[in-house]
Amino acid sequence: MKNFGDRLYEACVEKNSAVCVGLDPRLDKIPLHIKEKAISKNKNTFKAAAEAVLEFNKGIIDAVYDLVPAVKPQIAFYEMFAEEGIRVFRETIEYAKSKCLITIADVKRNDIGSTAQAYAHAFLGVVDLFGEKVKVFDADAVTITPYLGWDGIKPFMEACIKYGKGIFILVKTSNPSSGDVQDLCMKDSRSVYEIMGHYIESWGADDIGKNGFSPIGAVVGATYPDQAKKLREIMPNSFFLVPGYGAQGGSAKDVKNCFIKDTRDVMTGAIINSSREIIFAYEKSEKYGEKDYDKAAREAVEKMNEDLRKAF
Amino acid sequence: MKNFGDRLYEACVEKNSAVCVGLDPRLDKIPLHIKEKAISKNKNTFKAAAEAVLEFNKGIIDAVYDLVPAVKPQIAFYEMFAEEGIRVFRETIEYAKSKCLITIADVKRNDIGSTAQAYAHAFLGVVDLFGEKVKVFDADAVTITPYLGWDGIKPFMEACIKYGKGIFILVKTSNPSSGDVQDLCMKDSRSVYEIMGHYIESWGADDIGKNGFSPIGAVVGATYPDQAKKLREIMPNSFFLVPGYGAQGGSAKDVKNCFIKDTRDVMTGAIINSSREIIFAYEKSEKYGEKDYDKAAREAVEKMNEDLRKAF
Repeated sequence: MKNFGDRLYEACVEKNSAVCVGLDPRLDKIPLHIKEKAISKNKNTFKAAAEAVLEFNKGIIDAVYDLVPAVKPQIAFYEMFAEEGIRVFRETIEYAKSKCLITIADVKRNDIGSTAQAYAHAFLGVVDLFGEKVKVFDADAVTITPYLGWDGIKPFMEACIKYGKGIFILVKTSNPSSGDVQDLCMKDSRSVYEIMGHYIESWGADDIGKNGFSPIGAVVGATYPDQAKKLREIMPNSFFLVPGYGAQGGSAKDVKNCFIKDTRDVMTGAIINSSREIIFAYEKSEKYGEKDYDKAAREAVEKMNEDLRKAF
Repeated sequence: MKNFGDRLYEACVEKNSAVCVGLDPRLDKIPLHIKEKAISKNKNTFKAAAEAVLEFNKGIIDAVYDLVPAVKPQIAFYEMFAEEGIRVFRETIEYAKSKCLITIADVKRNDIGSTAQAYAHAFLGVVDLFGEKVKVFDADAVTITPYLGWDGIKPFMEACIKYGKGIFILVKTSNPSSGDVQDLCMKDSRSVYEIMGHYIESWGADDIGKNGFSPIGAVVGATYPDQAKKLREIMPNSFFLVPGYGAQGGSAKDVKNCFIKDTRDVMTGAIINSSREIIFAYEKSEKYGEKDYDKAAREAVEKMNEDLRKAF
């Protein structure tokens, strides 16, 4: 199985892009013509909401797949519509993969060992269905929250090795109160997020691919550039998944510290996520209205690619 | 809306029980006659797995609902079967509520503010479905992981107040490596789990019900009785949800520190979860085989109730 770090590295080089498109389809912002079509077929049901979400997502994916290496559906916006939402979460991943995109299921799962294993099987591996091994969500990577420590992460790591998949562990998140836990300072003056960085570096040390990255990445918010600099030094072998660019306030300058200059002089090692500013770009576009939300999204991705390339 | 702390307190008093039955339906352990029936109707599909899970759960709930205050379905074992699994997760909650059980959705969700709000709406509140407010999972409480700090918890807290619901935040979990993050020691000699305890006490301080409990509970593992003692002192106003009894090694003696003796001389303030040892009790029962898994579960609950009552 190809190492996930290599897969992601190569996808970034191929597309000459570090942009990850966040698929967080808020129903109130999905264009009216899509919602009307879904309601006319399914009335005011979860199924209608889910169908609207799926059509919207496919439009975004069609518009941007040749420009970016990865997409990241955030499962909260799908769970809102119960089993119908979960169905289109699964179908969104399937569709994105059919367009050769790397799919990061933003699920922030974690639990004690035997439960974490169930999650790892469902999102990255295969489950046992009456003796038959079957794929469920089959994402390329998932996000993970680390409060339970290593034994809640190990089953995901095993799935990474077995299936060429990846994980991104929360280290320093982009939200205002991320410091409540992450900035707590130890006796030796290190903070919790730094210690998480050291854990990740050691957990991934045995599985580094030919381009220098392990399958264990780190979530590091664009809104904390100083902390990102420190973390980049602690974790030279981890891809960073960087939320907080755009709507949350992070700029290209802020995310610069998340990258590494590799031996071929390529800036690599980070993918920068943007959700609202891309998928609902039509709201601010001068050129495109909501019917052309896909064109507006493509325009926003082109602008973001340009913005990030200029920063180096 | 009635305070969740009061609702849980009263349910424990009414049933004279502190047992929470964990509904973690591992397909390989579900009795053959249930699986064969599901397969005969739906072949080897996710639907068959989900139907087997639902029938199994209903059998357990029917057998124990008069003996315990609460059940806790662990969503990982449902997500394994994609949208069909999520459907029966929802239907399990619905069925348990119809039997007047308190339902704790063990989902360990958390995210930045706007995403946490989507989760809170889905699991505890209502979502906006084309202008109509609709319940989705409508559990009585959820478990939450705290790595992102207060702004990822606030939306859940708002749902608690608005809908009389509860949350249980991970503080000191039962697994062997819980110390990786939770035991990290600060400059002032407090550990991360103690600080989490202080956060929870302050976050719940404005919403304490007439029986002395806020809607914010804490997850404290039965496998760490000394830490539980400390945490009980830090959080006099929080219910503890205690995993780790039974299969994971915790005994009645170990969980004693999680309780409070209230003004009426009632031992309260904790619910002790057991999953495997109850729902798959038939595996170890001398009296009942797998066809009578429900009777074996009832027997195991009676034994656990007895075991806990004797400890005080």
